[in-house]
Amino acid sequence: MSYLIDGLQYSNWSEAIFHELRAGGVDAVHVTLVYHENFRETVANIERWNRWFERWPELIFQGFTADDIATARASGRTAIFFGAQNPSCIEDDIGLVEVLHRLGLRFMQLSYNNQSLLATGCYETEDTGLTRMGREVVAEMNRVGMVVDMSHSGERSTLAAVEQSARPIAITHANPALWHPARRNKSETVIGALAETGGMLGFSLYPHHLAGGSACRIEDFCTMIARTAERFGTHFIGIGTDLCQNQPDSVVEWMRTGRWTKAIDYGEGSKDAPGFPAMPGWFRDNRDFRNIADGLRVAGFSTAEVEAIMGGNWARFFGTSFGAAAAGTVAKRAAE
Amino acid sequence: MSYLIDGLQYSNWSEAIFHELRAGGVDAVHVTLVYHENFRETVANIERWNRWFERWPELIFQGFTADDIATARASGRTAIFFGAQNPSCIEDDIGLVEVLHRLGLRFMQLSYNNQSLLATGCYETEDTGLTRMGREVVAEMNRVGMVVDMSHSGERSTLAAVEQSARPIAITHANPALWHPARRNKSETVIGALAETGGMLGFSLYPHHLAGGSACRIEDFCTMIARTAERFGTHFIGIGTDLCQNQPDSVVEWMRTGRWTKAIDYGEGSKDAPGFPAMPGWFRDNRDFRNIADGLRVAGFSTAEVEAIMGGNWARFFGTSFGAAAAGTVAKRAAE
Repeated sequence: MSYLIDGLQYSNWSEAIFHELRAGGVDAVHVTLVYHENFRETVANIERWNRWFERWPELIFQGFTADDIATARASGRTAIFFGAQNPSCIEDDIGLVEVLHRLGLRFMQLSYNNQSLLATGCYETEDTGLTRMGREVVAEMNRVGMVVDMSHSGERSTLAAVEQSARPIAITHANPALWHPARRNKSETVIGALAETGGMLGFSLYPHHLAGGSACRIEDFCTMIARTAERFGTHFIGIGTDLCQNQPDSVVEWMRTGRWTKAIDYGEGSKDAPGFPAMPGWFRDNRDFRNIADGLRVAGFSTAEVEAIMGGNWARFFGTSFGAAAAGTVAKRAAE
Repeated sequence: MSYLIDGLQYSNWSEAIFHELRAGGVDAVHVTLVYHENFRETVANIERWNRWFERWPELIFQGFTADDIATARASGRTAIFFGAQNPSCIEDDIGLVEVLHRLGLRFMQLSYNNQSLLATGCYETEDTGLTRMGREVVAEMNRVGMVVDMSHSGERSTLAAVEQSARPIAITHANPALWHPARRNKSETVIGALAETGGMLGFSLYPHHLAGGSACRIEDFCTMIARTAERFGTHFIGIGTDLCQNQPDSVVEWMRTGRWTKAIDYGEGSKDAPGFPAMPGWFRDNRDFRNIADGLRVAGFSTAEVEAIMGGNWARFFGTSFGAAAAGTVAKRAAE
C-alpha cells in the first residue's frame, strides 16, 4: 500500500481545499495550529477544526494514530494531524504537553525563528541549545508521543534536540542549505544526524527554501532530493510542502512578528517582497503531488523509493512516534 | 459481574485515598474537576490528575469509556471519570464541550446553585429554565456524549433539561425531598422524570442531604432507597456519595462562594456550622461501601438489586452515555 502524506501545510482551509486534498489523493497531512498562539488560542484553533470535521466528515477527519492513515485511504478521506510551529501553546506549563497530545497535537517545534522557553530559533544571533525547560519538555514529549520538530530552530539547538531526545525527531519542512543557503535550510551535519537516528526530513516547496525561488524547476528540486538520498539514504526523507494556500499577507505578517515586536520583520521576505511568494507552477496546490512523484522517477528513483518519499516513510515514522513510550525507556534517557 | 461505582466524589486526593478506593473495591468513580473554575483552571486540574495517573498507575487510571470499568476490575485498579459541577469550565464557548469531552469530561452540571449561562441553580428565587445557550449546549453534550447532570439545578431547569435532552440525564448526588426537604434534594416529579426517561439518580451521603444529618442511621438511609425503588423502580438508582474526604473548610467556602460574592454564603451550612459536616459513622470513606450493600439487603433488596444499585445501573448508564450520538439522532431532537 503506498500512501501520500504531506509533512506540513498551513492553508486558509475551506471546503474547496478539502476537495483538492481528495482530488490529489492526499491520505494524511500534518497541519499547523500554532504560530504564536498561547494555550487558549490554540484550543480555539482546535475548535475551528472540530467545526470543519463535523461539517465535512466525508472529506476529512482528525488523525490520532498512524492507523488513521489506513482508515483515511479505506474511506476516501484525508486524515488531519495537528502540529505546532512554536511551543507558545504550552506556555510555561509542561503539563500542557500531555493535555495537547490528548487533543491530538502530534508535532511541536521547540522554537520558531526566535528564542523560546525551550530552544533557540534560526534567526537569533546566539544559539544556546536547549534550555532547562527544553530538556524537560523533550522528555515529556518523548513520554506521551509528540514529535520534536526543529524546522525553525538553530543548528546547535537542533543537534542538541537530536541528542537529548530518546525518540527520533523531525524537520518537517526544510531543504539542504548546500543547495540553497537560506537561513531556514539545514546543514549536512543536521541532515546526517536525522538520517542516522531514524528521524525525518520533509523537503519544502516554500519558495524561499528553493534555489531559484518561485522559478525553481521541478528537475532541480528532484535532483536535490536525489543528491540528498545518494549521500544519506532514502529511508528518512519525505515531503513537507509548507503549502500556505489562499492566505492573505496579513497571515505571513502574523507568522513573522506575532506579538514579539512592534516593528516590521520581513523574515525570509524583504521590503520589496513582504508577502507570501508565489508557489512554483508545478506545485500550485494539493492536486499537483503527481508532478513531484513524476519528477522523482525522472530523477532516477525506483517506484518503491518514490512511494517511500511520497508517504511511506512518513507513515512508518507516524507509526513509531505518536504512541506513549514503553514504560521506563524515556525516563532513563532523560535522567542521563 | 457486579461492579462498585460511585456517582460522585470530591476528595482531597492522595495516595492514601487511592489505596482506600482499592481497599473498598471501587471499580469506578466520577470525580469533580470543577466548582467555579474557568477553562484554563479546569485544564490545570486535569494536569494535576495526569500527574497522579503517572505516579500511581497501579492504583488508578483515567476512564474514557464504559469498557474502562471492566479494565479496572480486571487489573485491580479504579477508573477515574471526570465531571464538572458547574459549566464555568466551558465559559461562553460551546466549542469547549467537545474539547473537554476529548480530555475526558463525562459529566457536566448545567448550573451550580446560582444562575449560569445555561440554567438556573437551586438557590435562586426565580428559575427560568434553560437559556438559549443552555438548549444549544445540551444538544452539543448529547452529540459528543457528555452527561447532563442537574444535581444543583432548580426544579424547572431540571425538568426542562430532561425534556430538552435527546439522551437520558443524571442527578449524580441528591436524595428525595420528601424524605428530607433540603433545597438540594429532589421532588417526586423530578425523580419520576428520571425514572421514566432512562436517567439516573445517585443517592447522596452528604450529611446536609440526609434526614438527621450526620446522625442519620444506615437503616433510615436504606429504607429511603427502598421507598424510592418501590415507587419508581430499581432500574435508575445508584449511589453518589458526594464524599469530600480530608478537605479543609476553605474548600467548602470555595464551593459555595467561588468568585461570585464578596460576602459569606453558608449554602447548606450555617453561621454556627460553616464547615464540612462530619460523615455518618457507617460511611467514613471508600472502605465502607460494604455497609451500604449490607444495609440494602436488610432493607429487603435482592442480591441482583443490590448489585444494580451499587454499580450495575451506573455501568449500564456509562455504556450508553459516553460515546458520540448516532449521526442524525441528536440534531433532530435539538431542532424540534
